Amino acid sequence: MKIGILTSGGDCPGLNAVIRGAVLNGVITHDTEFVGFRNGWRGVVERDIVPITRHDVRGLAKTGGTILGSSRTNPFEGEGGGPENIQRMLDAEGIDAIVAIGGEGTLTAARRLHDEGGINVVGVPKTIDNDLAATDYSFGFDTAVQIATEAIDRLRTTADSHGRCMVLEVMGRHVGWIALHSGMAGGAHAILIPEQPQSIEQICEWVESVRSRGRAPLVVVAEGFTLPDMDEAHSHKGLDAFNRPRLGGIADVLAPMIEARTGIESRATVLGHIQRGGEPTAYDRVLATRLGMAVVDAVYERAWGSMVTLRGTDIQTVAIADAVHSLNRVPQSRYDEAKILFG
Amino acid sequence: MKIGILTSGGDCPGLNAVIRGAVLNGVITHDTEFVGFRNGWRGVVERDIVPITRHDVRGLAKTGGTILGSSRTNPFEGEGGGPENIQRMLDAEGIDAIVAIGGEGTLTAARRLHDEGGINVVGVPKTIDNDLAATDYSFGFDTAVQIATEAIDRLRTTADSHGRCMVLEVMGRHVGWIALHSGMAGGAHAILIPEQPQSIEQICEWVESVRSRGRAPLVVVAEGFTLPDMDEAHSHKGLDAFNRPRLGGIADVLAPMIEARTGIESRATVLGHIQRGGEPTAYDRVLATRLGMAVVDAVYERAWGSMVTLRGTDIQTVAIADAVHSLNRVPQSRYDEAKILFG
Amino acid sequence: MKIGILTSGGDCPGLNAVIRGAVLNGVITHDTEFVGFRNGWRGVVERDIVPITRHDVRGLAKTGGTILGSSRTNPFEGEGGGPENIQRMLDAEGIDAIVAIGGEGTLTAARRLHDEGGINVVGVPKTIDNDLAATDYSFGFDTAVQIATEAIDRLRTTADSHGRCMVLEVMGRHVGWIALHSGMAGGAHAILIPEQPQSIEQICEWVESVRSRGRAPLVVVAEGFTLPDMDEAHSHKGLDAFNRPRLGGIADVLAPMIEARTGIESRATVLGHIQRGGEPTAYDRVLATRLGMAVVDAVYERAWGSMVTLRGTDIQTVAIADAVHSLNRVPQSRYDEAKILFG
Amino acid sequence: MKIGILTSGGDCPGLNAVIRGAVLNGVITHDTEFVGFRNGWRGVVERDIVPITRHDVRGLAKTGGTILGSSRTNPFEGEGGGPENIQRMLDAEGIDAIVAIGGEGTLTAARRLHDEGGINVVGVPKTIDNDLAATDYSFGFDTAVQIATEAIDRLRTTADSHGRCMVLEVMGRHVGWIALHSGMAGGAHAILIPEQPQSIEQICEWVESVRSRGRAPLVVVAEGFTLPDMDEAHSHKGLDAFNRPRLGGIADVLAPMIEARTGIESRATVLGHIQRGGEPTAYDRVLATRLGMAVVDAVYERAWGSMVTLRGTDIQTVAIADAVHSLNRVPQSRYDEAKILFG
Repeated sequence: MKIGILTSGGDCPGLNAVIRGAVLNGVITHDTEFVGFRNGWRGVVERDIVPITRHDVRGLAKTGGTILGSSRTNPFEGEGGGPENIQRMLDAEGIDAIVAIGGEGTLTAARRLHDEGGINVVGVPKTIDNDLAATDYSFGFDTAVQIATEAIDRLRTTADSHGRCMVLEVMGRHVGWIALHSGMAGGAHAILIPEQPQSIEQICEWVESVRSRGRAPLVVVAEGFTLPDMDEAHSHKGLDAFNRPRLGGIADVLAPMIEARTGIESRATVLGHIQRGGEPTAYDRVLATRLGMAVVDAVYERAWGSMVTLRGTDIQTVAIADAVHSLNRVPQSRYDEAKILFG
Repeated sequence: MKIGILTSGGDCPGLNAVIRGAVLNGVITHDTEFVGFRNGWRGVVERDIVPITRHDVRGLAKTGGTILGSSRTNPFEGEGGGPENIQRMLDAEGIDAIVAIGGEGTLTAARRLHDEGGINVVGVPKTIDNDLAATDYSFGFDTAVQIATEAIDRLRTTADSHGRCMVLEVMGRHVGWIALHSGMAGGAHAILIPEQPQSIEQICEWVESVRSRGRAPLVVVAEGFTLPDMDEAHSHKGLDAFNRPRLGGIADVLAPMIEARTGIESRATVLGHIQRGGEPTAYDRVLATRLGMAVVDAVYERAWGSMVTLRGTDIQTVAIADAVHSLNRVPQSRYDEAKILFG
Repeated sequence: MKIGILTSGGDCPGLNAVIRGAVLNGVITHDTEFVGFRNGWRGVVERDIVPITRHDVRGLAKTGGTILGSSRTNPFEGEGGGPENIQRMLDAEGIDAIVAIGGEGTLTAARRLHDEGGINVVGVPKTIDNDLAATDYSFGFDTAVQIATEAIDRLRTTADSHGRCMVLEVMGRHVGWIALHSGMAGGAHAILIPEQPQSIEQICEWVESVRSRGRAPLVVVAEGFTLPDMDEAHSHKGLDAFNRPRLGGIADVLAPMIEARTGIESRATVLGHIQRGGEPTAYDRVLATRLGMAVVDAVYERAWGSMVTLRGTDIQTVAIADAVHSLNRVPQSRYDEAKILFG
Repeated sequence: MKIGILTSGGDCPGLNAVIRGAVLNGVITHDTEFVGFRNGWRGVVERDIVPITRHDVRGLAKTGGTILGSSRTNPFEGEGGGPENIQRMLDAEGIDAIVAIGGEGTLTAARRLHDEGGINVVGVPKTIDNDLAATDYSFGFDTAVQIATEAIDRLRTTADSHGRCMVLEVMGRHVGWIALHSGMAGGAHAILIPEQPQSIEQICEWVESVRSRGRAPLVVVAEGFTLPDMDEAHSHKGLDAFNRPRLGGIADVLAPMIEARTGIESRATVLGHIQRGGEPTAYDRVLATRLGMAVVDAVYERAWGSMVTLRGTDIQTVAIADAVHSLNRVPQSRYDEAKILFG
């Protein structure tokens, strides 16, 4: 068999480990031939294809990023897009199946290509925010949590030295798992997540309660958190209170508000892209490797339109259709659990 | 309520985080009073007790070791040992329940104290080797895997520079999870675990096959691995081939054997105690914190004779009696999965 | 003797190690008694004093921040300020000498207190930017460089995956040492420092030349870097091009400019306060410890108005007056050296 | 010009960064052509030569090991060895100069090739132990110290948890710099170096004094340390007290002796090869890069028989003949300084 791999969407620690797991399993177990589509679906629609040999994936599990590059191209758009064109290209190239590693958009597109065009495709879900309910954990999440936790550890000593309130913004557009886990690991005094809008009054209450115990408050906020009275025009995703495009993130909104209301000197730090790159944790190297190996097994089982996930300690295969739209929100019970430590 | 905590047995990353989780949950949710028994069960039988306040656990989640110390004392031995003496001591101290954090021996003793003496005790299982089947993962395991993986990463470049075979010995007395996970994460060329005795011939075959591909072989071996034809007197736990007490570990046995049989210069590294100490990973800080919080809930639910475990992403409570003796061996399927990458 | 220690100004990795080095040397060698002035000079003028024992500095070398807290208070201001008040306080407290750990402002104040008031004071220079010419390296600098380098390593993989230009802003208000060293260590494609204004055209030239080689450009910029045609109102320290107060830093200015001019998607990351906190590198733990030990020797040598510095591998003592105003600018030769690798 | 590079002797963090610095400086500044001799001098005498392009050194500064491999081959031995053969080979290959990166043996051989055969050769000293007096610091040393310090940090918590004495063996065959710096950074309670033989009585005195203060003793010992009454046959380099070849290192000798004499449970850890491999610190990445760049400048200055070194913050060139035999012993003053903290 000849399998084509693509990595689509945002960078995520472990992408290369997935590629390596897939290639090694295929080559060693099935004598599979592998190619890569460069830069996500763009490589599919533009027929930008490179061979991937066993040698190419040497030592790759510890390397961040993706050797195939990535993009946000949609496989239904563009001249070479759509199931017919893609199938034609696959036939011409002798490619039997596509392994698509990407987020909800990529997996949905993969499912459509299969359902509408009969294209042989399986997926590996990629969501550094861990927002897919069909899997206990997504690869890259543990690394992002580790990076955020180390940032909290560093900010804590600076906060304590100056009696400041430090507000750290971490990833988490729709769900607050990274904030929850790093906040718990790092002993944050307030964890703000999209699932749980908090008023600025409540936030300042938490901050002042910490201050009254002689500690410097540490607030962790997910990028997708909003204040409940923050209307669309003034959300951090749009315009600020002066109707100008926001340069910063929610942390840049909160820090001055906290300082203004409590009198406690407050500083914002936005972790940003650092969370996406570099060497994955051992946990993610193992998980990503296992997922990569499993998706090739799924190809040989002809489990088209499915994707590989983690349940407990087992790697499983589920239909993309059944699974991809369930958002893995932080449940109330998990937030209550974390809140005990700071609320 | 007044709860007494003890940590028993070998050091494990996350012990302090468990203590912190327990104390914060108790103090904040229930206004619990906490004391610690110093140095494991020894503090129970010798009535060596210290208060633990909320202040004492500040910032503790990231600190390795245990503020309570540890020992291998058995609570059924010694002058103050046995259920009657212990209950008498608890009554005198006004302690309502014991939280015992320890390995199989500690949990078994805890169960016996409850079954035979009606002592109010709940447990948190501690096994850095991850050898308890009742829980998906044990706290401290992820950290040990991370440390071992970093060691593999460092040994790899040295191996490649010199064309040597490097043999790294990691923890894993009865089960090979640390070797399996770090070997997978680090791209080892052979993973040797207690569950799967391999002949020296097979090991050398793997090593030479790597060498023939122009790579320097990296072998990861769990401390409890044995060669099948190695009799007791000559196991690495006893005497060596010259009938002298072994100074080294299994890696010190294998490296010279590999070198003698393949001609490839081979070096042994024993990671040892480094795996047990220091800062836990974010993963372990979260898991340990959650387990500590949950065990206090178990006390208030009067779930005596039970222990807290992880299933999927949930913390659960199970009866020690049902759970503690099931050894979490690496199943054949997981070894086969890993073996694909090197076998 | 009784020595009072204070830490003033911004947080810096190694402050606690300096305190520990001083206290251990004093206590062990001279049976010195130590007190700490809390929160910098504020503790001096407000007589906020705490004892520091040998026990208090246990394990402190690896801890970021300062157990004494810090502030930007000036000892010549406020009710208790000025040489007379301070000397009176020292006499009342039986304190024989002050050890002041701080930046140029603190050292200058220390010198004035000695020159104008005869106060017994010695200094340990603190400048994470490494901007003091009297010392080869300042403690905390190596840690800041290490943190910045790790950030570059993480950004690089994300940049490569997306073909983006990543602009990382690091500390360096007046001098560009952190940017120079981390840029060199991390293989940046452009290093922008205050000593070397570059036009946006030159920056874009470097960026496009990298892009033409198929690489994703990585730009490291010191916070104090300015574009030569950027007037004060529009410098990143004041207002932006729309006359509004800037939320971001120089990286937030450059990234959109680079994107607009080159068409290469560009993202800014501001490392910020993360560089100041947390565990110091081994290098800084050693350097800070040695400086702390040496400043106590300087007290016993009655070298008032002096400060301890590093020259080669030796710790030396120099008069603050001679040394404190020489700014350690990155010399042309060092920038040319670095520029070879990217220019 | 065409320059041939070789890396000889033991692995050392930063070797690849030296190669990268040299290649980039040469290619960019002088349009130099580079080749590499594989596996040290073996590649010279066996004419095993590979091209090294700018592309080959991409991202290499952060990678441990050496892309050229290494060996302990002596260029004066073997069929292709000796100045005449080597010069003939260089002429045939059109190679104008050799850059030799290696330890004392390599540099001495380089000098001899120049002195006796007029071969154009310059050197970059490589000594992870930092045992060359002609340079303030050698590349790789900082990384070894960082690794050793992290090991001490991990052992400390385990020691404290169990009240044990932990003995950590680090590199340092003839000089004790790694033990000195890591011991100082890690707060060791005894630092044992080759320059300062200590009796077992003195060591036990230090250990017991720590124990009496309620702490768990941490001993750091350099591999080359010997007990003064340990004769050659019984040094850890030869045979043990039973006249059998030693399996372990000096730590394996000391731990049981300490335990036997003090009754304190003692455990040995030998860091070994982990110290040599993997990613270098930012400090070493900068130093190694600068040395690599400078050695190419030395080639163009025709400074044959010289080597590049670090003095303060400057890279300098010195004659190998003048410099290579001066052993950089830890001076009494530096040991006394460290001893204050534990003695």
